[in-house]
Amino acid sequence: MNLRLISKILGLFTFYTGLFMVFPLLWSIHDRGPDRIPILLSMVITVGLGAITFLSFRKERGEIFRKEGIFIVTFSWIIAAAVGALPYHFTGIEEFPTYVDCFFESMSGFTTTGASVLTNIEALPRGILFWRSLTHWLGGMGIIVLFIAVLPFLGVGGRELYRSEVPGPTPEGLRPRIAQTARTLWVIYGVLTVFETLFLMLAGMNFFESLCHTFGTLATGGFSTRNTSIAAYDSVAIESIIILFMIAAGVNFSLYYQAIQGSIKNILKNTEFKVYIGLVAFLTTFTAITLLLARNYDTVGEALRYSGFQVVSILTTTGYATADFDLWPSLLRVLLVVLMFIGGCAGSTGGGMKVIRIIVLVKDGIREIKRTIYPRSVFTIKVGGEIVKDSTAAAIRGFFILFMLIFVAASLIMAGLGLDPVTAVTSVAATMGNIGPGLNQIGPTLNYAFIPLSGKILLSFCMLLGRLELFTVLVLLSPDFWKR
Amino acid sequence: MNLRLISKILGLFTFYTGLFMVFPLLWSIHDRGPDRIPILLSMVITVGLGAITFLSFRKERGEIFRKEGIFIVTFSWIIAAAVGALPYHFTGIEEFPTYVDCFFESMSGFTTTGASVLTNIEALPRGILFWRSLTHWLGGMGIIVLFIAVLPFLGVGGRELYRSEVPGPTPEGLRPRIAQTARTLWVIYGVLTVFETLFLMLAGMNFFESLCHTFGTLATGGFSTRNTSIAAYDSVAIESIIILFMIAAGVNFSLYYQAIQGSIKNILKNTEFKVYIGLVAFLTTFTAITLLLARNYDTVGEALRYSGFQVVSILTTTGYATADFDLWPSLLRVLLVVLMFIGGCAGSTGGGMKVIRIIVLVKDGIREIKRTIYPRSVFTIKVGGEIVKDSTAAAIRGFFILFMLIFVAASLIMAGLGLDPVTAVTSVAATMGNIGPGLNQIGPTLNYAFIPLSGKILLSFCMLLGRLELFTVLVLLSPDFWKR
Repeated sequence: MNLRLISKILGLFTFYTGLFMVFPLLWSIHDRGPDRIPILLSMVITVGLGAITFLSFRKERGEIFRKEGIFIVTFSWIIAAAVGALPYHFTGIEEFPTYVDCFFESMSGFTTTGASVLTNIEALPRGILFWRSLTHWLGGMGIIVLFIAVLPFLGVGGRELYRSEVPGPTPEGLRPRIAQTARTLWVIYGVLTVFETLFLMLAGMNFFESLCHTFGTLATGGFSTRNTSIAAYDSVAIESIIILFMIAAGVNFSLYYQAIQGSIKNILKNTEFKVYIGLVAFLTTFTAITLLLARNYDTVGEALRYSGFQVVSILTTTGYATADFDLWPSLLRVLLVVLMFIGGCAGSTGGGMKVIRIIVLVKDGIREIKRTIYPRSVFTIKVGGEIVKDSTAAAIRGFFILFMLIFVAASLIMAGLGLDPVTAVTSVAATMGNIGPGLNQIGPTLNYAFIPLSGKILLSFCMLLGRLELFTVLVLLSPDFWKR
Repeated sequence: MNLRLISKILGLFTFYTGLFMVFPLLWSIHDRGPDRIPILLSMVITVGLGAITFLSFRKERGEIFRKEGIFIVTFSWIIAAAVGALPYHFTGIEEFPTYVDCFFESMSGFTTTGASVLTNIEALPRGILFWRSLTHWLGGMGIIVLFIAVLPFLGVGGRELYRSEVPGPTPEGLRPRIAQTARTLWVIYGVLTVFETLFLMLAGMNFFESLCHTFGTLATGGFSTRNTSIAAYDSVAIESIIILFMIAAGVNFSLYYQAIQGSIKNILKNTEFKVYIGLVAFLTTFTAITLLLARNYDTVGEALRYSGFQVVSILTTTGYATADFDLWPSLLRVLLVVLMFIGGCAGSTGGGMKVIRIIVLVKDGIREIKRTIYPRSVFTIKVGGEIVKDSTAAAIRGFFILFMLIFVAASLIMAGLGLDPVTAVTSVAATMGNIGPGLNQIGPTLNYAFIPLSGKILLSFCMLLGRLELFTVLVLLSPDFWKR
């Protein structure tokens, strides 16, 4: 591995990440907030650090191969979380007692998890709040993808970076011209951002909060500017807008790309899309009926309103809340945890295992049942009429096995730190799936503040594993990776 | 499928199952118990029903192919549970208010789960208690295997039956002479039974209870004759004997077969055996240390005594208890639930997913990490130096996927019936893994009585799925199975 070339790219990456701090800085200056100097300081440090590293290695040339790509992507995210924590750290907020708390919040932001250590969010200055939400937005579409889009010098290497960052097993037809694709994706993302912000403002939210919640929605993040999340507004209009855009954010963005190119029919033919929309519709109805039967709500309208929001929020792994689902019937609590594992579509900003993987896994399971009857026959797995390649299916199964193994191991460690079983298990599910809230002590009205520092470090790692879909991070821990 | 031939065999099977009721009948006659007539009635009905069916189809000849084998095995177990419930039903015990409760208890017995609806076990007459334990013993080594051993007329069909019943992916070197193998397995089982009974009697247990607990141990069942399970005896000697025989029951019985044939070295070379013994040793130590640190026990001796028993009991899926592990630290409660999924070795009487499957799954996961680095290389999975065939690995992955899918679906239904999340989830884990006790409302000092009837039916089905390792039952639900 060419570590000097890697340093150059990571330096540049750090530099650009620092530049983004100008936006929260502007808010804080506008507000004359107490976070002006801290954010400026963070920006200077980050930009400076990035610039020095880049300039030290600026003469490095060479190709980015798979190993370099994996290394760069994983460390970009760790660096982003590390420098992204600086504004929190320097502002000296009581609820961020240590740097680890800041790192947790920052990693939660970039990975679009939305798990927070904060109780009184409304007490924070707007510069800090804006940075929190902006990290979601940057992480949502992929910070690396952004840089691929704007840094043509990465050349072919961009493909390796892209492959290591973009979620899901098969980003269809996106490979050939990677830089242009990345640009298109960000343009789509940008357009959606403009629209949601406008809609939220029309529904009565102010510009600042509209922007922050748009970032949180489209990135399927979940950070809010209010202590009680979206429940604070108690507005059907706002909730409906956020539901729609959460659904949109959970769709494979390459479908929008295809739609722009005129093939709208392909979207409706896409199996993952159909299953995803079907899941949203079915689960919302099912949850509403259950809530009515359990007398949690009195009218069909109310039941649908709260079931729709919570189901979409958890399935897309956003994590916004308009109701405390930890008070819902046992069935729905278990169901919501199951949804955490499913997540959105591949190539969306959503987390979890992704709908397409679940589809392939279910078909794989059914295939083995058939093989019991006809042991010598060869059965293929088809999705949407197309055969899933054996190597793809194997990667998906491997992903599932590793996901479950890590989930179990991390849950054990969290329980070992003294968390009760339900909190331990759902804290891992909610961070690996990049959701945010879990059950019991980390329910939607609570936060992660009480978790021991070692637990926060582990959960930050779970967020990274989830966002980069395991392999990109795990290979770095494999001795094979470091062999020449 | 030759349904007439199947009926003949199932008739014969029912007939023999009924014959086994003579043993509890003898106890009840000896005690002049209130269960004499009920057991006799059950026996007459079962034997009669079996005999009539067999005689009606006695002239049927033909081969048993795979489909017939699968059908016979699944229905044998359902029939066994159904007729096995009759003694409970006819005795009119208050704690068996409905036939479903009896069926649950009977299925729990035959599948060696050990989940019970009873509170006051000691109030039951000995005939009933003996039948409960005997169902464990019959189910442990496999009722079908028993009949293969004694019914040579099954011929080649025996192999199909054997394949469908014996747990684990690879019963090594056992295929060729299936009837003789089955006989040998039952002889080993019988010898172990004699020894454990003798040892328990030497440790001070009376003959009746020794026999019942031996059945419960060697079958990794878990039914006791005492309300507080093995804790009732408060005897280190008894606990040690039971620990040793639980460990022995969790070993692949084909290893004993090999040992008899002189190749003892093979046992120590067997990877699954080594991992299994390693797990027992490591987990006992780990649990003991955790219990000491949490101040659950004061001395190393006490901590080891209770950790050893509980760890072995859950890992082997027996379910006997000497301590209420639901009062243990969160870490250990989560750990014990994880152990429920692992279970004993393939070809043992234990349940769960089996150690060998976990080994292959972990190696499969690691292989996919390697493939991330070298996407074009071919990696094989090796266990104990031998390559695992692709079809075997695929079957194991399929098993894992289906196990998890069914686990999730059944947990949702149980939660839907009103059980709290932890009880719902662990009730499914404890029945699919054929363990018995779970956490919260079904903890080791509690029972399944309060669960709604529909829940008992579902859990009975989970026990059957677990005992027959999914495929044998699931294929019957597949439309492909019923195609000509």
